[in-house]
Amino acid sequence: MSLIVQKFGGTSVANGDRINAVADRVEKFKKEGHQIIVVVSAMSGETNKLIGLAEEMMESPDPRELDAIVSTGEQVTAGLTALALINIGIPAKSYSGYQIKILTDQAHTKARILKIDEKAIRQDLDAGNVVVIAGFQGVDEIGNITTLGRGGSDTTAVAIAAAINADECQIYTDVDGIYTTDPRVVKEARRLKSITFEEMLEMASLGSKVLQTRSVEFAGKYKVKLRVLSSFDAYGEGTIITFEEDEKMEEPIISGIAFNRDEAEINVLGVPDTPGIAYQILGPIADANIDVDMIIQNVSKDGTTDFTFTINKRDLKTTLEIIDTKVKGIIHPREIISDEKIAKLSLVGVGMRSHAGIASKMFKTLSDEGINISTISTSEIKISIIVEEKMLDRAVKALHKIFELEKA
Amino acid sequence: MSLIVQKFGGTSVANGDRINAVADRVEKFKKEGHQIIVVVSAMSGETNKLIGLAEEMMESPDPRELDAIVSTGEQVTAGLTALALINIGIPAKSYSGYQIKILTDQAHTKARILKIDEKAIRQDLDAGNVVVIAGFQGVDEIGNITTLGRGGSDTTAVAIAAAINADECQIYTDVDGIYTTDPRVVKEARRLKSITFEEMLEMASLGSKVLQTRSVEFAGKYKVKLRVLSSFDAYGEGTIITFEEDEKMEEPIISGIAFNRDEAEINVLGVPDTPGIAYQILGPIADANIDVDMIIQNVSKDGTTDFTFTINKRDLKTTLEIIDTKVKGIIHPREIISDEKIAKLSLVGVGMRSHAGIASKMFKTLSDEGINISTISTSEIKISIIVEEKMLDRAVKALHKIFELEKA
Repeated sequence: MSLIVQKFGGTSVANGDRINAVADRVEKFKKEGHQIIVVVSAMSGETNKLIGLAEEMMESPDPRELDAIVSTGEQVTAGLTALALINIGIPAKSYSGYQIKILTDQAHTKARILKIDEKAIRQDLDAGNVVVIAGFQGVDEIGNITTLGRGGSDTTAVAIAAAINADECQIYTDVDGIYTTDPRVVKEARRLKSITFEEMLEMASLGSKVLQTRSVEFAGKYKVKLRVLSSFDAYGEGTIITFEEDEKMEEPIISGIAFNRDEAEINVLGVPDTPGIAYQILGPIADANIDVDMIIQNVSKDGTTDFTFTINKRDLKTTLEIIDTKVKGIIHPREIISDEKIAKLSLVGVGMRSHAGIASKMFKTLSDEGINISTISTSEIKISIIVEEKMLDRAVKALHKIFELEKA
Repeated sequence: MSLIVQKFGGTSVANGDRINAVADRVEKFKKEGHQIIVVVSAMSGETNKLIGLAEEMMESPDPRELDAIVSTGEQVTAGLTALALINIGIPAKSYSGYQIKILTDQAHTKARILKIDEKAIRQDLDAGNVVVIAGFQGVDEIGNITTLGRGGSDTTAVAIAAAINADECQIYTDVDGIYTTDPRVVKEARRLKSITFEEMLEMASLGSKVLQTRSVEFAGKYKVKLRVLSSFDAYGEGTIITFEEDEKMEEPIISGIAFNRDEAEINVLGVPDTPGIAYQILGPIADANIDVDMIIQNVSKDGTTDFTFTINKRDLKTTLEIIDTKVKGIIHPREIISDEKIAKLSLVGVGMRSHAGIASKMFKTLSDEGINISTISTSEIKISIIVEEKMLDRAVKALHKIFELEKA
């Protein structure tokens, strides 16, 4: 008997039929003798509908109220899923994040989970119930409803799997696993049987939107065995996300190519190259709970330096306002430039560690295609570049081919 | 400075424009220096939509899950209303029943309020906030979400007004007050400036669906000053619901004619006329949380008696099943008859106490109209009858005229 957490996203619970399919799948595992915890997202479209209602009342809705409103989407799905289970004779109980309770910090609309009270869950499981939990939400210490940000239901699932020491956390989505890149861009893209946590982390954070980054971090930190599966395919194995040390076979050099069209780039040019400059620029932005992704600082010339970072496009306006009001007066940059028409592309693979020449092969390929690279940033297992948005598809295709990612 | 609870029903918060109108009304009172607590229902249609979703999953949805699902409707409206207030510069905070917390018993879908924690509300009011509370819902002692049954938001409003000792509880609806009878049936029907709690209780329980019965009981018990107003009319005075002793003027003999088409009648014929028979019939029905309205037992003849009661039509099937399985075997009735095509009509007025001949005038009028009365039941301030449903309108019109209810 295993204890399995199964998370179903918005398209997997989009309507009554889909929810019944979820119940059938849960039944299959239950009959095999497993204990099951189900985590659900809002029915697809519902969160946007609720945000739309909120924005009808107020241009930038008060975050506390927005959270109270949008969190209802998952609560409804959790109740409906429990009903679908009870209807086929499987005892089930639904819980909101408030009820569990999933304690978070107070950062409304992007809260972080601090603690999960697993007692009630365990009692219900031991009593033979399937426990259905509303994803994406929690409650702060004074009882305000919080949400975890887009894709937060993945984080809920993994956090619960960690808290209750589940044997496996299965993430059901509308794709049947993790691919070498987006098959809509490269038709030869191939499903990976396994991927390491580190690679997955890079892939997820870079826009392979199968899993929320934070959920992968959580899974890595708490050693939660994670599997990505399709909820539309009853027999698929999906992609298992492994700890590197478990891996026996030779690593492929490159696992995949991730990309992201949602980011905007901000260049803060000609700032004094003094200690603390990065903090002076990014501190006020972090205080506003805006996530900064890439951060690049070029070498100093004549005592000044250029500082570049990327953020989500939706945060661009706010970020520029913050720089205007809270940063400019202190660091006096020569110029601020921002660009929304960019895309980020990353080559990801743990094999990079032991293989030289990957970067130069990458840059040569792009050069041959006539694609200009504006910014480069690298880590141990990843090379990220920023290119013009319109050049992205061509870059992905060329790199997928040169690194032979279509071959197993 | 007064402390006012304002409750807005589904049609009053049906969309963004209506919610903004609610915010404008709250602003008016706030600017006059009052402290305001707002209680809201779900947007009209929303509760039915959620029930529909639940029934799609399960024919008779599990009540615990149903409550978790439908309670989200009010939570959304509460959040939207808070946003509308914040948007016009009025600090506001929304709360679900769970958050407040509104403690109820465990009778899912028709729970009763046991206790309200008013501390958080008072703190927020003292800090200058308008407190917006999701009506219709509460939480039981182990943290399950409960709902109070249809119209339960009225009860929430009155219970909060009682708990926090509010100066007035205003119930905003789509009608501008309590009428002598339904204006759709009698066009001469007149709005009452005031009505006593006792009369209102009879009117409400009999199908003048302006206020939920329980909310009026609550208001009477805790001496909450209650006013029914239209949310579509900025200047109306509505109808105030008074304690009889406050009333200075001469009472009218009859205040109004209430009626109800939602009931079904069950006749349990030829049961032994022994002590405990009423309990043996009604006990199992009450255990199933089914509300019984009229109860009539005819005089005994040859050791057996006939027992008649009415329930809501939607409970008819369940009630007949209960009688079949849990009652028949014990009391052995000669026959069980049920009738859905009935209507109940009641003449209500505290003046009845001191005026004779009301009943005979009523019966003569109906007789002149050729309307047959199947069942009669009376209280101090009310005469209720059951007639064929198709005769109801004619009966109401005739009685409204003979008692001159159109005249102030």
